[in-house]
Amino acid sequence: MDFKSYLSGYVDGEGCFCVSISPSTRHRFGWEIRPSFSVSQNADRAQVLKMMRDYFNCGTIRPDRSDKTVKYEVRSVSDLVERVLPHFEEIPLMSGKQDDLEKFTCICHMMYQKLHLTETGFNQIVGLVFEMNPSGIRKYRRDEIKI
Amino acid sequence: MDFKSYLSGYVDGEGCFCVSISPSTRHRFGWEIRPSFSVSQNADRAQVLKMMRDYFNCGTIRPDRSDKTVKYEVRSVSDLVERVLPHFEEIPLMSGKQDDLEKFTCICHMMYQKLHLTETGFNQIVGLVFEMNPSGIRKYRRDEIKI
Repeated sequence: MDFKSYLSGYVDGEGCFCVSISPSTRHRFGWEIRPSFSVSQNADRAQVLKMMRDYFNCGTIRPDRSDKTVKYEVRSVSDLVERVLPHFEEIPLMSGKQDDLEKFTCICHMMYQKLHLTETGFNQIVGLVFEMNPSGIRKYRRDEIKI
Repeated sequence: MDFKSYLSGYVDGEGCFCVSISPSTRHRFGWEIRPSFSVSQNADRAQVLKMMRDYFNCGTIRPDRSDKTVKYEVRSVSDLVERVLPHFEEIPLMSGKQDDLEKFTCICHMMYQKLHLTETGFNQIVGLVFEMNPSGIRKYRRDEIKI
């Protein structure tokens, strides 16, 4: 049993690599870009989430208010770049979720380099976000996010 | 990357080991017991299901009528005992789902030995079924399944 491969399999099934964009007066260009890696689970079987948090040595586990699940989540860009994403460079996902993961990785690395604070970088990142999770619902259209 | 461990991780996240019990005039004691191993997935990323079917060399993949997912499923007791369950003996699940898997394994092996055709075996199996997936909803109560 190889825990690292097991973990990638688990995340391929249950994990989410998402980037939200929301209006914010506190952020340059008026929009906050927030990448998040998360895995949700029924509260009665949260063991794997604890193993994950110990393995990545970052992130938080908390109850999801909307239902009876708990969620493991990493939002810190430096934790994502330094602790989480190297694992998936070593053991990639095998499903189409890998495409999203690659865009997510690119976005996190750009933000790690503070490129989201430049106009070009910001626009590149927003473009990538809109190519991700095409089956999901977005609150804002691409053309609403103008800078 | 170890595919076997990856697979156990994926199944720990997304897989289901379920046993349904439904009234049937064609079955001894008036009830049909049907074990099923299944994994559902959004239709746009069914690759892992195909890998699973190739790896286990049994089961079917078909669209789920209720939503936009596809489901990989193995229902044959002999396929479950001979092809699927040996994998999870080798690489068990790490979450609480392992408890259900152990009961499921016991039920499949009993049915493989035709013990569900004996009154004692039938009652033992039904008892195990009612200990599984306690969070799920059952159509019949234990005391309705009389023989």
